[in-house]
Amino acid sequence: MPRKICVVVTARPSYSRIKTALRAIQEHPDLELQLVVAASALLDRYGTAVNYIESDGFKIDARVYMVLEGENPASMAKTTGLGMLELATVFDNLKPDVVVTVADRFETLATAVAASYMNIPVAHIQGGEVTGSIDEKVRHAVTKLADLHLVSTEYAGERVKKMGEEDRKIFVTGCPSIDLAAEIADDPALNFNPFDRYGGVGGLHELINGYLVVMQHPVTTEHEKARQHVWETLEAVYEMNMQTLWFWPNVDAGSDGTSNGIRSFREKYKPENIHFFKNMEPTDFLRLLYSSKCLIGNSSVGIRECSYLGVPVVNIGTRQTGRERGANVVDVGYGKDEILAAMRKQTSNGRFAQDKLYGNGKAGTRISQVLADAPLQIEKRLTY
Amino acid sequence: MPRKICVVVTARPSYSRIKTALRAIQEHPDLELQLVVAASALLDRYGTAVNYIESDGFKIDARVYMVLEGENPASMAKTTGLGMLELATVFDNLKPDVVVTVADRFETLATAVAASYMNIPVAHIQGGEVTGSIDEKVRHAVTKLADLHLVSTEYAGERVKKMGEEDRKIFVTGCPSIDLAAEIADDPALNFNPFDRYGGVGGLHELINGYLVVMQHPVTTEHEKARQHVWETLEAVYEMNMQTLWFWPNVDAGSDGTSNGIRSFREKYKPENIHFFKNMEPTDFLRLLYSSKCLIGNSSVGIRECSYLGVPVVNIGTRQTGRERGANVVDVGYGKDEILAAMRKQTSNGRFAQDKLYGNGKAGTRISQVLADAPLQIEKRLTY
Amino acid sequence: MPRKICVVVTARPSYSRIKTALRAIQEHPDLELQLVVAASALLDRYGTAVNYIESDGFKIDARVYMVLEGENPASMAKTTGLGMLELATVFDNLKPDVVVTVADRFETLATAVAASYMNIPVAHIQGGEVTGSIDEKVRHAVTKLADLHLVSTEYAGERVKKMGEEDRKIFVTGCPSIDLAAEIADDPALNFNPFDRYGGVGGLHELINGYLVVMQHPVTTEHEKARQHVWETLEAVYEMNMQTLWFWPNVDAGSDGTSNGIRSFREKYKPENIHFFKNMEPTDFLRLLYSSKCLIGNSSVGIRECSYLGVPVVNIGTRQTGRERGANVVDVGYGKDEILAAMRKQTSNGRFAQDKLYGNGKAGTRISQVLADAPLQIEKRLTY
Amino acid sequence: MPRKICVVVTARPSYSRIKTALRAIQEHPDLELQLVVAASALLDRYGTAVNYIESDGFKIDARVYMVLEGENPASMAKTTGLGMLELATVFDNLKPDVVVTVADRFETLATAVAASYMNIPVAHIQGGEVTGSIDEKVRHAVTKLADLHLVSTEYAGERVKKMGEEDRKIFVTGCPSIDLAAEIADDPALNFNPFDRYGGVGGLHELINGYLVVMQHPVTTEHEKARQHVWETLEAVYEMNMQTLWFWPNVDAGSDGTSNGIRSFREKYKPENIHFFKNMEPTDFLRLLYSSKCLIGNSSVGIRECSYLGVPVVNIGTRQTGRERGANVVDVGYGKDEILAAMRKQTSNGRFAQDKLYGNGKAGTRISQVLADAPLQIEKRLTY
Repeated sequence: MPRKICVVVTARPSYSRIKTALRAIQEHPDLELQLVVAASALLDRYGTAVNYIESDGFKIDARVYMVLEGENPASMAKTTGLGMLELATVFDNLKPDVVVTVADRFETLATAVAASYMNIPVAHIQGGEVTGSIDEKVRHAVTKLADLHLVSTEYAGERVKKMGEEDRKIFVTGCPSIDLAAEIADDPALNFNPFDRYGGVGGLHELINGYLVVMQHPVTTEHEKARQHVWETLEAVYEMNMQTLWFWPNVDAGSDGTSNGIRSFREKYKPENIHFFKNMEPTDFLRLLYSSKCLIGNSSVGIRECSYLGVPVVNIGTRQTGRERGANVVDVGYGKDEILAAMRKQTSNGRFAQDKLYGNGKAGTRISQVLADAPLQIEKRLTY
Repeated sequence: MPRKICVVVTARPSYSRIKTALRAIQEHPDLELQLVVAASALLDRYGTAVNYIESDGFKIDARVYMVLEGENPASMAKTTGLGMLELATVFDNLKPDVVVTVADRFETLATAVAASYMNIPVAHIQGGEVTGSIDEKVRHAVTKLADLHLVSTEYAGERVKKMGEEDRKIFVTGCPSIDLAAEIADDPALNFNPFDRYGGVGGLHELINGYLVVMQHPVTTEHEKARQHVWETLEAVYEMNMQTLWFWPNVDAGSDGTSNGIRSFREKYKPENIHFFKNMEPTDFLRLLYSSKCLIGNSSVGIRECSYLGVPVVNIGTRQTGRERGANVVDVGYGKDEILAAMRKQTSNGRFAQDKLYGNGKAGTRISQVLADAPLQIEKRLTY
Repeated sequence: MPRKICVVVTARPSYSRIKTALRAIQEHPDLELQLVVAASALLDRYGTAVNYIESDGFKIDARVYMVLEGENPASMAKTTGLGMLELATVFDNLKPDVVVTVADRFETLATAVAASYMNIPVAHIQGGEVTGSIDEKVRHAVTKLADLHLVSTEYAGERVKKMGEEDRKIFVTGCPSIDLAAEIADDPALNFNPFDRYGGVGGLHELINGYLVVMQHPVTTEHEKARQHVWETLEAVYEMNMQTLWFWPNVDAGSDGTSNGIRSFREKYKPENIHFFKNMEPTDFLRLLYSSKCLIGNSSVGIRECSYLGVPVVNIGTRQTGRERGANVVDVGYGKDEILAAMRKQTSNGRFAQDKLYGNGKAGTRISQVLADAPLQIEKRLTY
Repeated sequence: MPRKICVVVTARPSYSRIKTALRAIQEHPDLELQLVVAASALLDRYGTAVNYIESDGFKIDARVYMVLEGENPASMAKTTGLGMLELATVFDNLKPDVVVTVADRFETLATAVAASYMNIPVAHIQGGEVTGSIDEKVRHAVTKLADLHLVSTEYAGERVKKMGEEDRKIFVTGCPSIDLAAEIADDPALNFNPFDRYGGVGGLHELINGYLVVMQHPVTTEHEKARQHVWETLEAVYEMNMQTLWFWPNVDAGSDGTSNGIRSFREKYKPENIHFFKNMEPTDFLRLLYSSKCLIGNSSVGIRECSYLGVPVVNIGTRQTGRERGANVVDVGYGKDEILAAMRKQTSNGRFAQDKLYGNGKAGTRISQVLADAPLQIEKRLTY
């Protein structure tokens, strides 16, 4: 009987981080995929990732609405609690052999806690990395709950081991997001018109010159400053006056601050050089990135996929602090002037060399192999 | 303005582990105590710890019912989620400066997650210890969420540090449970009649000879075996034929299995040498322990308080595996025969020497000092 | 395409009230049964109705643990809220055409509210009846949420109509519980030994003489008195000194009071004439009732099934106040003496004539027909 | 000891419907106000009513975040369940003598259910009215749970009585919203500049000519049509080409549809004659209404306050169907042309005569008197 592998996908970016693994699990003869789609992955405001999941041909076993509205950190805590409550029922009905949880979001933690208390082995994708904000706490807490660690980099594996996890349960698989990047790098032609396919709002209607891509998320433990942060970036991009494709942030306690900043800026300046998109199919997004002059913001795509793709990145603020990075990244603070200076430097540099720091493009397959072969065991103990 | 210290007490044993700290916080001029009583601490089936809390003179700021019924591990996961949901509201209304969470229960985790997402510094009591079962995962996950670590032993502090926590945030305070033990050791007379004061059911009505104390909890990741485990211990105690005071287990997924086993055994054998109690005021319990010949079961009281008190202990099964212990403990498996042999050995040994492994009796005061003085900071990162 | 009929079963008694309808829905060519089992129907303490449901051959589409522990009315409110949360997810995944909710329990209301907000037509079984306690409020609130009313008696239908519901949406189907009673009445032989099949605890081991059956539930708005109420009945039954089969109450805020009373009484008197059962397959229970001398307590079985079966009933207290009843029922207060007097009168009377007040034995089939044929419409308005 | 009256305010419009009663409860010597602010009343997207509540000088005893995000009716059901869970804890901690719930929203129902199960008498404001949509079901379900009915009109009182409620528990108090309208009618000068005070977005910057006010909410059981409905109204108002103040809808399952329609329309037409506001202090809103030529949309303000104020109203669609109305209201369907025709008719008519259908301006005081004087009793039964 195949092992039942239940993967919980809760957000647009998590989907890109797991998609090739989903495919490989689905195709593996000894595995049966159980797919749960939850949280912001179901919501229009955050790009309705569920639509992409379905159009990619995945069958969804359960959907769980669990995101609480609010401009207050209480809503994040409550979303986590609600997710735990409901995922317990989902797991109780699906009876998986392994639950897979991705990265370091609050739903990641909800998934890990629910599965742990239900004595279901937890496989954690992307443990052992270091960043700023609450994600840092959550990621390592999930490591302490997890029974299998499927990490992206050698160094991440080292950290997981140092935290007291057993060597034999740590697998350096690379990140599945790099699998998608590798597919694009093999055939990078910009074969679609983003305005026709995705609509969006704002000033641009065709891409003729070199262009920028921006994706800036609120940093949750400073959520009141989110509006101010995004404003500085908006001003830098406005003054840079290159064609710019700007992507809306995903769900977080401060997202209303960021969204609000963007709306006010548009109202005030009606910037002709910026077009705003709510969401985009991940491969289309990577294709756009590949041909761009530079990615600006604090998305981890800049650190991970862009290192493989060689795209120059201006990484703003603390959100990615501590993450291993390639030569393609320039780090700056939140001020308009330093952002602008870095953008100028990076756009004049051109493409960087490919870096396999986060994977060699075979992570999905590797993950499915580990899930099929690894001994499953829920009892564990610190190694020291 | 005093720092507002919100302590969440969720079970009878946790209350003993924090009581002297509550008192010290209450009396500290720079601290204001906010006390939340939740989960099994409110429930009759688990001894209504809330009554002892109130009769000890503490004012309760919020009560939260959150324990879900069920013989299924799903109910533990859901209890955790429900606790998180509700504690978020409680914290949002109380607005504490620090949240204190105790040990490694599911509500401990719910408390830590809720506070972390709300950007409230978390102080964790009793991190860094090693045991069996799900508690192990939860304890270390809480360490990764916590901002201040108030540990019981030197070695526990070492482990917390190895997990990547900063030295300056780790404080070896000792365990407040030893404070209570120290008070008893100073004046150990058995100054009450347990049958008169606590009722209970079963065969004994006075304590004239040497007597045994039993407290055996279900081991949650093996919860279906709970009934069988307790049955072996019951048979051993029955055959030993000494006067025995048996304490009901606290809430856990398998508690119905254990309770059920006890009920069936009583129905079948009507054991004249065993009296069953649901609960007891912690100091009365310690006093009883002090004068007993031996403690049998898997309670951590055997490992902690009894090492200070010098009471011989027969520790059954995996629940305390990995915990540091003194010379007073003999470890055995679940079989009736090895339990019986160990009981005979320990009862013939007599009292052991005092061991300060888990504290010197001043933990409560030390904890309140740390809470008053430590810099509060929610941002953290692995030290490696 | 068949209509998908989602039935939510949440308790042992509700299952008897819907079982023949489940069968008829399952067999109807134009209907597809979706079965959700939740709340106390899943719990060992309340008889694990789910086991009977499965052994009756029904496939369960979702299980939902939702009963909160506690001796406090808050736990009932929270159970209702939790049920609503989770049932919404279940309905969102099952996408039923109609949701069927039974009677007047808190989960009945949770079911009706969740379905109403999800724009799913609600069919309510057993509306329009009148009783005491919170059930009264809940039952009529569910009527105001429901789109189809499948009532048990003519008079119940009249009341639903008076409350402002449209005549064409009200169907007097009879109660499915009477279908089971009719099957037993056709072949009433006591063809099993209850002690062998169901175990239980207490003094009896065979049924040779005439015997009594007792089933007394706590009355929720007076839950603190539950212990005292059951004590009076216990004393009456003890003094009556006939063989007695006593059934444990189902889940309610005061159930711990009642259970506690029973336990204490047993501890004190060790009554040799009473045997206590936790649960029994409904048809076995009816068979036992049929051959009994009298049913004592406040179960609605006394009012409904016993009127068809002609079994004498001593109905205690306010729980069934207002319900239509046949000649087989004598109503008394909570005092031991009046209970005892009524038991003597009823046991000396012998079987009463069959009364079809609550149905003619074809309710299940009639309900399935209505569910297949009735126009489905969620918009409604008071008729006055 | 004063009666503790716990009022749960969950939305901007509910606050207007209860504000003068809050004041009267606060000032009544025999009453103590306990104020809970929850749901959309806490959210920025819906106008953060909590800010107005605080600036009006009310102390808030508990805040509860409970609105779930989503474009799906499941989220409304889950919001209701979550509210019930959390309000139970709030009531358990506040221990009110009476809980007051307002109108017919999902949180109204959550409040009533939680209080009912906790044996706390429920006073329902605004029962007995008739409208379209799910509100209709909820309003009457709350009536069946409520113990005191404080209705707005004579006819509403009649309907509550017909539903089987006791005459002595029904009080025709009038609606507190009319109290605010009466204050404005006494001194109606437009003494502020809405653009300066409330910002908002869009084409207008001063009010010099006659102007229109629009407030159109999604109709929940048709939520997918919400976008189309609002679009027709937008076109009518655009073509009318009078100055227009447009108010954003409050939280409902379809609100994203409506909001989305408004955003798209603005993007497409950049209408110079329409200014959009998110929220406004209720008295400022009434002042603006008083001086307007016409209110367009489906807000109940058109039916209630405007009848007292004599403001002409174009009432669109089914949302207010069945509600009693004065001569000031013209009802139309969702089509642009009929909306436009009605707007022309109403703007040329001028102010209507005052109508006291919904109250005489003393409702708040009357409500506080009833709450102080009425016998409190939770047991009830149908009167027929």
